[in-house]
This record gives sequence, C-alpha cells and structure tokens, in this order.
Amino acid sequence: MYQAGSRAGRSNAPDGALTAPRFTASATTKGRLISTEQCLDWLAQQRAQRAFSVEQVPFDQLVGWHFHKDTGNLVHQSGRFFTIEGLQVHLEPARVQDWNQPIIVQREIGILGILVKEFDGVLHCLMQAKMEPGNSNLVQLSPTVQATRSNYTGVHKGKAIPYLEHFRAPRQGTVLVDSLQSEQSGWFLHKRNRNIVVETTEDIELLPDFAWLTLYQIQELLRLDNVVNMDARTVLSIMPFAPPEAPAEQDTGFRAALVRSLDAESPTVHSVTEAMSWLTENKARYELTQQRIRLDEVDCWHRDEERIAHQDGGFFSIVGVAVRAENREVGSWTQPLLAPAHEGLVAFLVKKIDGVLHILIQARPSAGALDIVEVAPTLQCTPETYLGLPAEHRPRFLDEVIAVPQNRVRYVAWQSEEGGRFLNAHIRYQVIEVEDDFPEQEPDGFRWLTVHQLSALVGFGVGVNVEARSLLACLHTLW
Amino acid sequence: MYQAGSRAGRSNAPDGALTAPRFTASATTKGRLISTEQCLDWLAQQRAQRAFSVEQVPFDQLVGWHFHKDTGNLVHQSGRFFTIEGLQVHLEPARVQDWNQPIIVQREIGILGILVKEFDGVLHCLMQAKMEPGNSNLVQLSPTVQATRSNYTGVHKGKAIPYLEHFRAPRQGTVLVDSLQSEQSGWFLHKRNRNIVVETTEDIELLPDFAWLTLYQIQELLRLDNVVNMDARTVLSIMPFAPPEAPAEQDTGFRAALVRSLDAESPTVHSVTEAMSWLTENKARYELTQQRIRLDEVDCWHRDEERIAHQDGGFFSIVGVAVRAENREVGSWTQPLLAPAHEGLVAFLVKKIDGVLHILIQARPSAGALDIVEVAPTLQCTPETYLGLPAEHRPRFLDEVIAVPQNRVRYVAWQSEEGGRFLNAHIRYQVIEVEDDFPEQEPDGFRWLTVHQLSALVGFGVGVNVEARSLLACLHTLW
Repeated sequence: MYQAGSRAGRSNAPDGALTAPRFTASATTKGRLISTEQCLDWLAQQRAQRAFSVEQVPFDQLVGWHFHKDTGNLVHQSGRFFTIEGLQVHLEPARVQDWNQPIIVQREIGILGILVKEFDGVLHCLMQAKMEPGNSNLVQLSPTVQATRSNYTGVHKGKAIPYLEHFRAPRQGTVLVDSLQSEQSGWFLHKRNRNIVVETTEDIELLPDFAWLTLYQIQELLRLDNVVNMDARTVLSIMPFAPPEAPAEQDTGFRAALVRSLDAESPTVHSVTEAMSWLTENKARYELTQQRIRLDEVDCWHRDEERIAHQDGGFFSIVGVAVRAENREVGSWTQPLLAPAHEGLVAFLVKKIDGVLHILIQARPSAGALDIVEVAPTLQCTPETYLGLPAEHRPRFLDEVIAVPQNRVRYVAWQSEEGGRFLNAHIRYQVIEVEDDFPEQEPDGFRWLTVHQLSALVGFGVGVNVEARSLLACLHTLW
Repeated sequence: MYQAGSRAGRSNAPDGALTAPRFTASATTKGRLISTEQCLDWLAQQRAQRAFSVEQVPFDQLVGWHFHKDTGNLVHQSGRFFTIEGLQVHLEPARVQDWNQPIIVQREIGILGILVKEFDGVLHCLMQAKMEPGNSNLVQLSPTVQATRSNYTGVHKGKAIPYLEHFRAPRQGTVLVDSLQSEQSGWFLHKRNRNIVVETTEDIELLPDFAWLTLYQIQELLRLDNVVNMDARTVLSIMPFAPPEAPAEQDTGFRAALVRSLDAESPTVHSVTEAMSWLTENKARYELTQQRIRLDEVDCWHRDEERIAHQDGGFFSIVGVAVRAENREVGSWTQPLLAPAHEGLVAFLVKKIDGVLHILIQARPSAGALDIVEVAPTLQCTPETYLGLPAEHRPRFLDEVIAVPQNRVRYVAWQSEEGGRFLNAHIRYQVIEVEDDFPEQEPDGFRWLTVHQLSALVGFGVGVNVEARSLLACLHTLW
C-alpha cells in the first residue's frame, strides 16, 4: 500500500532545501576551533617551516617531460598528467574568426573536494595549507583534497593522498553537493574537475597541514589577496546559501539587496527557465570548431630552450619549473607551467532592481570550452591586450570598470589561478555596484540574474566559468 | 523600496510550476480540431499525394558530395551539413578499450521546435507531416520545425522553412521549455539539437502539411509503430507533466504508481542531488579519448562503390541515396545515410517501490558522447551483436528482456530513428514492469529514478540520451 515517506532512508526533501541553511549558518559563525588570525599564522608557518623553492629551468631539464618527436607536443613519459598541444580554432560570429594557440590538454577529471563536519552544530570545512609552484606566495588555503586522476591512481608514485577515501565511492559520508565544473577555457581544452562537498560524522584525524574552518572564516580570508586558492574558491562556489534573515522592507542598502538576491522567492528580471533558454540560444548562435593540431604547427608562436612564446610577447608562454618541497605527494619534481604575459581583470557589475541585487552576466564563447559558450562575468579580460586598440575593439564595459569611482567597488582583491598549472596567474576580481541610472536594458549576450539564479546555473553544471564561480564565492563574503 | 512582485513582466514563478499542468491538460484532452483517425488519414494522404521515391545509389552519383582527397572523409562541397569521418576511441574501464569507426560529424546545432497554441483553453501542438528519406514509411509526424543551421541559414538554397520565425530571436511567443539535447552518440560525434517549445497567441496560418494536435492525440499515435518521428519524440520528452490527479491511497495498480511517479512530492529511492552526484561519479570513473582520424584510416571497415561497411557485416554501413520529393526544402537531392546492420532493442525496467513507479536507468559511456557518459535506458543494444557470445559479454538485462512474459510488457512499439541521417534504423522500444520480487538492489552503474526525476535530468540538459528520452515520451502514453 502506498504511504508517502514510509521508508527509512528514502529522500523526498527538495534538493538543497536542507543544505543551504546549514551552509548559511556556517557562513555566519566565527570559527570555534582556531581563530582566523591563527589560521593566517598557521599558513605563514607552513610557508616558513618547509624549505620550498621553485625556479624556472630550460625544457631539457624537465625530468620525464619531453617534446614528442612526431607531434612536437610537450608530454610526460607516462602518457598521463597533461600535455601541451596545439589548437586550431574557428569561431563565428567573431572579430577574429580563426586562430591557433598552444593549449593544455588534460582530459582526466580530478577531484576538488571539501570534507565538512559539524562541531557544536555548525559545519566546519577541512582546509589544507597547500604548496603550488605557480603561486607567488606558494602556500594557499586549498580544499581537503585536490587531486588529478593520475595523482590518485598512483601514477605519481608519491605518498597516498590524505582523506581521499571520503571522496571516492563507496564512501561513508553524505554528499552535499557534487558537480563537474570547467576550468580556464582560454588555456585548457575541455578541462573539468569534480567539485564535491562531503559531510562526515566520523572522528577525523587532523593532520598538521589541515585545519577545520567555518565558512565565515574562509570568507574572511577570501577578502584578502592570494590566500584562498582557486580550487577552494570553485568548491565554495557550488555551495547553495539560504538568506541569513529577511531584511526590513524599507532597507534599500546594498547588503539588504544582496540578501534578497539569495532568496528564491524574490522578484527577478528573468526566470531560470528564461535564463537557460537564453544560454541555449547563445550556444546555438555560435559555431565553434576546435581541432587539435601539433604543437609545432602553431603559427606565430616560437619555442626556444626556455619557453614557447607568442612572437608579440602577448597572451602567455609555456615554461619549465623545478620544484623542491616536502609535503607534496612527491618531495621534488619538475613540470611545465603556463605563464600569462599580463594580469587579468574580472568584474561583476551588480545593480539593485526592485530592491534585489542582480548580476550582469554574459554568454561568452571560448577556445577551449566544452560547450561553445560559458556563463562569464560582466567583464573578463587581460586589459594589456587592448591598450591602444580603438574603442570598438575593446571588451564591453572595460572602460567603465577601469574608470569606476572607488565608492562603487564593493569587493576587490587579487586572487591566483591554479598554481599547479599556471605561473603567477594573477587576476584582479571586483564587484562593482553601478549607479542607479545605469541602464537596465541588457546588451546583446548579457542578462541580469540574481545570486540565487546564478547559483542554480552553477548547480546544474551547465557551464558557469571558473572566473564567474570564483567571483561568486567572493560575492558571498559581502553579506 | 522593495516590493515583491511589484513589476509587471517580472517572473518569479517557480520554473515549470505553471507549465506542467498545462501540458497535462493537453495530454488528457481529445483533439478539438481533427480526430486522431483523421490525423492518420491525413498522414496516409500525404504519403499518397506526393510521388516520393528514395533509392540507393553508388557514391559517385551523390551530387555535391565527395570523398575529400586529403582525408578520405565524405564531405559536401559547401563544407556544411555533415561529414562522415573516422573516430579513434579509447575508453576505460571497458571490455573493448580501443577501437575506431566511421562517425557522423555535425557540429551545427539545429532546431527541433514545436509551436503550441491554446484552442478552447487547451494547448495544441502544430505538427508536420514530414518526409525523411530514411524512414521506411517515409512520412511521419514531426515537430513544427526540424532544421539544421545549414537549412535555416540558406546553404540549402531551398524554400524558406515555414514557422521558423517563431523559434529564432527576437521572437513574439513565449518559450515554455528549451534545452540542448544529444542524439545517437554511437553514430554521431557530439551531436546536439536545440529542443524548444514556444507558445503563441497569434493567429497562425495553417499550411497543408501541418495539423494542430493535443498531446493526447500525439500520445495515441506514439502507441503505434513508426508514426511519430524521433525529432518529435525528443521534443515531447522535454515537456514536464504534473500528475493528472491524486490516485486513491489504496490503489496499487500500475497507472496509480505511474501517476505518483510524476509527482515531485512522492517518496523516491534517491534525491535528484544524489542522482546528479551518481552521474558525476560515473563521468569521473571513465576515461574517454575521442580522436578524429581520416575516414580512410579506419581499420576493419572497407569502402566500395556503394558502401562503407565493417568487414564482418556488423554495426552499420554508410550508403548513398537519391531522393525525389516535392514538399521538402528542395525538390530532390542526394545524400549519404547511415544504415544500421540490425534492429535495436531499448527497454526500461520499471518497478513499484513504495507504490511509486521507478525506472532503472544506467550511466552509459559512448563513442561520440559529448560528456563521457549519458543517462541511458536499462537496456540499449543491438541484440544481433551478442548472438553466440558468452553470457558474461552480453549487456546486463538483455536475457531478461528477451525472455520477459508478455503480461509484464506495458508498452511496446517499433520506432524509427532520425530519417534524415539513418536508413531504416528501427528500434523496438519497451517498458517492462518487473515482478515484485525483482531485486531493489542496484547493479553498478544503475539507479532507480522516478519519472519526475528523469524529467528533471532531461531539463537540466545533463545528457539523458535520445533513446531514453524517446522511451520517456512513450512512457507518458501510459497514464
């Protein structure tokens, strides 16, 4: 006989309905185990205690890496990890329709996982002090586990990865959120990682490189430059948050508008259905052809003993580094890294519409995108590229962001992109509240979405890009 | 000041909450414009009136198509439509880890659109009687618009596509559902079409090849063999349905269990979050490498003047056809088609669990999948391939489906796959209700989901494959 909810262990709760308030509680509770200051001290100690060194080396000093004699691709002798190959791109409509470039190919799906556990009824995240050779300050706060498939299937021949067992089936804990998310699609071809948050109720041994922090603490650290690494930011971005409280109706402030923006019941410019349809429309609008070619066939890029670089010195270069460290899976190693030529700039323009904060997002095609276009921040570019170019060739809103008065900037920090693949990839992330007279009319390819809606798109795994997810995580520090 | 819902034209309704009951009303209302019998007569007339002919021709009689001298790929001189290329696949874990095969490459995203309009308060769908050369009965019921990008951007040099303007921005109507959905990933590389349903309130001129039908009528036709084409079935599959009524609590019948399975509030074995996590886990579990190679480099496949076929006669062949028809975009044409060597078999095993019908779906990797694995039916195979192979090499549940007693079969019909690309691609679709003692325990890679949950996954566009979507559309005929 039919009885609703009669079986133990059956879930019929609306998705996220139980999880979101628990993440919010963690984001509004100071840490009970160590203070944020202690956390910063601990990161500094981790940096000091271990004698890390990273230096650039010529390609012929890379151990296990070589340029394949047939393809010219830069590969590891195991055939694993990643390769540097060439990519021929055709995109239309576009100002530049055809180009080729070096690209990192890493088809393996790795794990970026945060283990969470309740202490005094509040979720705490097990965060790691992790060294990555491409980060200028080397040690940043990272997820519990940050592992490529080659790492965790043992190709690395290093130490076992701590806490990995919580993220691989069969597991003891409860999966709270879990989705595949893309990474830099200008530099990677079709790269995704599994972003996952698992809750445990077991006793967990705390290793020296790890600390339990509430989301409140992590968000405090997110306001600082280069403390929370990209891998942590992307996992944070998939967490849904419920509004911490209902703002007073007459409260027209930024924070009240942001809190309303977390609420599924707030009025919105578009429904999620409309947003999905808009994204679909943009995917159907572009034609993107991605053809892998030999690295030595890429035009306009030249290789010498130390780097592969564009003839104009722009975009990025590929270099080799030698790393000496004691707490990574192996004690020392060499590897290639991608070094951007210039710093990046990423911004959300946000606006109160009917008292609810809306983010102006764009549908942006990209060389290495798995699915043609991704949902991107209002502005995402390397400003240096556009110096001296006429205004019509500059990205939409670049001039506005550069000239914005300081009193409109709600968030600004330098953050590093993945230090395991990129060398000193620094991006200035900003949230800018536009003036009230900023037009509500959306330019072609742009849409106003609430924070709740953008989070929903992230949760569907439909391709909110890593820059937008990073900035979404940062935006959550503002309520 | 903040006022919820104060602005006209702002949507804050839960997605689908208003649309699903309207689709259900259409699925429970007999047609008011023409009867289902009249519709069948009309399809028969369409077949009779026009002197269609389709005949196989040698490759050298294909006009505009040739084997490219450098790659051996079969291409159109315009560079558009689609190409037949080679694909080298590496998949692990798998019984056969490496193989290559011919594959259809069609990166263009086409439109499969149904225009809907209320008559007497009930949604009717504008359906087309469309000739496709690969369908054995040639004319089937198809969506309002079924167009590749080459069609609608004019490469075809044929007549304008009727009603296309309703599906391209800027449009007058309201988008009810809209998502990118994949097609046969064993035969296509990364193929997707935009599936879209648009509601209009305008007066619409009814052209001779078209008819307004309720979903009730279309579902009646779906119970018949080869009447509703694949393109229509996939668009039908993205429509959400609300339960038509609440079954009596003591009703333990199949239909009551199916109706409960439409209900988001019914108890379920897994939450949608768990299902998404399971799918993510399966994507991370497999490694799939897809390398496009020259068609003339594919091993074990041989080309003569009339076909490209596997040396063992299995799988499929590529052939040419010449078509003479009067109501397609151009009056006559030639083209290649993929002809499967054998008929296919697709089945859902379904089971009442706590009085709610659950479908056993699987995560299935595939040669041409955009995202490694797709959500597939319980069973999807070409039985002929496995004749004589030992039991451990046969797909899970094949033997059970073949031996199932007739009284457990809730739905069975032959349906054709896309007749614009495939020649006589016939699949036997079945829904089988298992015995009560069928184990609830899920084999590796399988999950029990309700109809509502499977529909949610379709709506997210996360890769429910076309065979599962087709059968989902058929399953909806049973309530």
